[in-house]
Amino acid sequence: MNDQASRSLDRPKARLPRGFLDSTGGVLAVHDRLIGKLSEVYSSYGFERVTTPSIEFADALGKFLPDQDRPHEGVFSFQDDDGQWLVLRYDLTAPLARYVAENYDTLAFPYRRFQTGLVFRDEKPGPGRFREFVQFDADTVGTASMAADAEFCMLVADSLEALGLARGDYVVKVNNRKVLNGMLELIGVPEGQEGDATRLTVLRAMDKLDRLGIKGVAQLLGSGRKDESGDFTKGAGLPAKDIDRVLGFLDAKGDSRAAMCASMMEKVKGSAIAEQGAAELFEIDAALTAAGFGLDRVRFDPAVIRGLGYYTGPVFEAELTFEIKGDDGRPIRYGSVGGGGRYDNLVERFLGKKVPATGVSIGVSRLAAALEMRGLLSAKAHAGPVVVLVLDRDQLTRYQGMVSELRSAGVRAELYLGQSGMRAQLKYADRRSAPIVVIEGGDERAKGEVTLKDMALGAELSSEIKDRAEWAKGAASQVSVKREELAPRVREILARHRIY
Amino acid sequence: MNDQASRSLDRPKARLPRGFLDSTGGVLAVHDRLIGKLSEVYSSYGFERVTTPSIEFADALGKFLPDQDRPHEGVFSFQDDDGQWLVLRYDLTAPLARYVAENYDTLAFPYRRFQTGLVFRDEKPGPGRFREFVQFDADTVGTASMAADAEFCMLVADSLEALGLARGDYVVKVNNRKVLNGMLELIGVPEGQEGDATRLTVLRAMDKLDRLGIKGVAQLLGSGRKDESGDFTKGAGLPAKDIDRVLGFLDAKGDSRAAMCASMMEKVKGSAIAEQGAAELFEIDAALTAAGFGLDRVRFDPAVIRGLGYYTGPVFEAELTFEIKGDDGRPIRYGSVGGGGRYDNLVERFLGKKVPATGVSIGVSRLAAALEMRGLLSAKAHAGPVVVLVLDRDQLTRYQGMVSELRSAGVRAELYLGQSGMRAQLKYADRRSAPIVVIEGGDERAKGEVTLKDMALGAELSSEIKDRAEWAKGAASQVSVKREELAPRVREILARHRIY
Repeated sequence: MNDQASRSLDRPKARLPRGFLDSTGGVLAVHDRLIGKLSEVYSSYGFERVTTPSIEFADALGKFLPDQDRPHEGVFSFQDDDGQWLVLRYDLTAPLARYVAENYDTLAFPYRRFQTGLVFRDEKPGPGRFREFVQFDADTVGTASMAADAEFCMLVADSLEALGLARGDYVVKVNNRKVLNGMLELIGVPEGQEGDATRLTVLRAMDKLDRLGIKGVAQLLGSGRKDESGDFTKGAGLPAKDIDRVLGFLDAKGDSRAAMCASMMEKVKGSAIAEQGAAELFEIDAALTAAGFGLDRVRFDPAVIRGLGYYTGPVFEAELTFEIKGDDGRPIRYGSVGGGGRYDNLVERFLGKKVPATGVSIGVSRLAAALEMRGLLSAKAHAGPVVVLVLDRDQLTRYQGMVSELRSAGVRAELYLGQSGMRAQLKYADRRSAPIVVIEGGDERAKGEVTLKDMALGAELSSEIKDRAEWAKGAASQVSVKREELAPRVREILARHRIY
Repeated sequence: MNDQASRSLDRPKARLPRGFLDSTGGVLAVHDRLIGKLSEVYSSYGFERVTTPSIEFADALGKFLPDQDRPHEGVFSFQDDDGQWLVLRYDLTAPLARYVAENYDTLAFPYRRFQTGLVFRDEKPGPGRFREFVQFDADTVGTASMAADAEFCMLVADSLEALGLARGDYVVKVNNRKVLNGMLELIGVPEGQEGDATRLTVLRAMDKLDRLGIKGVAQLLGSGRKDESGDFTKGAGLPAKDIDRVLGFLDAKGDSRAAMCASMMEKVKGSAIAEQGAAELFEIDAALTAAGFGLDRVRFDPAVIRGLGYYTGPVFEAELTFEIKGDDGRPIRYGSVGGGGRYDNLVERFLGKKVPATGVSIGVSRLAAALEMRGLLSAKAHAGPVVVLVLDRDQLTRYQGMVSELRSAGVRAELYLGQSGMRAQLKYADRRSAPIVVIEGGDERAKGEVTLKDMALGAELSSEIKDRAEWAKGAASQVSVKREELAPRVREILARHRIY
């Protein structure tokens, strides 16, 4: 091996771990606008902003992730120098519980806060599934009132419309864990840890109704299901009568929220816990109706499950209903862009007393991507800075002076800082989407002038006249101006192109 | 041990690891405004925004932290499931080098980007020293031109003024690592690893000029120094003539940047590398002068070191010069709020070829705290939401309807979601800084009216009349309005208090 090759092998490779990504201009602008708009709406609902750190004690956050198949995975963890385990937060709800418990004596209850920030999952990444992503959460802590749960359904619906979605482009689907637990109780799944495995398999099967249809769910509730690729998923092994009961529950129908709830309850008659869940759903319906939120915005749906382990009552998901095309042009099932529910035990973990709570979480990147497909929030093709070229390197300070003048006049401007010639500098300006290039060579300097090349006009003329030779001369898109009129003439051209 | 106590011991304690903190409303608002303003200025300079993930491969980031005493500490690290080491980024510069190397073939050079985000240091926390904090960076990659370095000095100075600081409230101090290296060479510190320990001790001693004065620095360059607490710091053990040379260098003076640079060079005559550094400083001076940046904004200073290991040329720091009082009321040395420098080797690590680069980093929390002390950027005491009280729980949906009406009219409003009585609800509204409370009891309902309690006016009257009994009646600050006029009358009162 020669020396060169050996050095090359010693070098680190410039790459990112799987499930992480870089983002640039356009995408970031959409994210910012999305977060700004959500902040406005959440604030109008009376929520106050808080941030908590990315790193917490492992025991303080606990672990309530859906992936119970791999109980030791899911979170990034490391030991502090005193041996205590730290984790990167996997959501914004567990840290909120810690925050409320820590500040219990000073907060005003019901406590309402919103928070946005990065969360981390040490999971297998996949398409659209990252190991670091931004969530936007709101929660109300310290009230058992269903008015709080109803409020989050409204908040999500109002937020999606504030972001530009039309009524009918989305629907918020609500269910109740107590009703689901009642059903599990009726089919004989034991309460507590003993029934955990079966409970999980049954709920997961129900969760797939959208994707697999009633037949696929039936297989997963019974002996199991072989998918198109031949992979076999073991089923819950329920007897036929229990499968029928679950499928009957999933098949509940009603032309109002109240009717739907009544239909769901027909299948779980006799369960006290389900009755309690149904009563909660009726209260939510009443609050929604009073606030004018109809079936076109918020529905009840027996197939809404929500994976996280800490939910104890109402759960809901916001789904987009318009057709979204995948990269291959075929329509894809976009699924949930956010959701939430009631978790009455999270703060109790710390304090040993009931502190009922409920909240909502929105996945920012996922929602932003969907809005972009709908043509919403997307950045207008934005103009780059005015670029001052460097023709004579010994005149650098003159060029620098021009840049300063332009910036002082409120114009976004930069000096070309590379070492290349005129042609490469123009190419650079073009790639930076510079609207104007400022040129001062020896001839211009002698006459006390500078040349302004109108790149936007140049591009237009180029596409109109289709004559590259003519365009190269660029006569029509160039103008000579007095050196002392640089800033006002640049501003004139920018104004003509409506760039500020 | 009884059952209760045993349960309590099983509970996790709600607390944060050392060096991490929660932030709420006011502080966050200042941070947001700071980041927004810096984004504007950086964008006006032609920089484009990018974000990179918090987690990277350890070998891709390398480790260039100042604390070389503890070479294995400083970064949070953990292994991926395939055994590769991952780290939480400790700054935004090392990830930029990875980003540029990874996208080298598609970026337009000189490449100019800005980025803001959290960085993590696994260090011993202290007052104002956190293990997670926000940085705001800009860098220009792919140019050796000193115009780029000069530009960052201007960028920082312009940014601080855009944030409201007056000229004279800050100064940007510039030095050059090449000049420092020349001095180290002249006093016989060997190049490369062999001289690392002495080099570090000498530079650290020089870095303390501000804090310890010339005498303290002399001790640290010689046999060592005992501080007020009796702790002894080992010195560099330089012979007297070398100590004199270093002190002479630190004592350089000049009434212009050029004169200062000449004075520094007198002490390092004969070093080729120092001459090269001085030539760079002269170029920076010329660019600054051409752009109208005088000595009141950017100075040369022989005591500027910058801790990070990757700097190769000009380095600079922005310092606040106005008096800042500590918690005990005594003036404190606030020190640097940001800085940067040239690092020509970071991208070379990946590509094996020179890609010169230079940049600046601002510590957001540190600068925000300083600006707040100056009364800048601070949030006006902001009004909370209008709170609709719940007097009759069976009328919850009526109250919910009022909240919806107010929100539709653009008023920030919330329903009281707790279970407490009228008195506690008013207290809650007061703690939320509600400007208005909406009250509808049975009497009002019978008359088709609601009562609006003007909390702001109430507070004013209370402080004027000092008669708590009178205020408790609150007659002057309450008004009954027709139920259907709820929203417009609330808006009138808010307008009167200039709250929107």
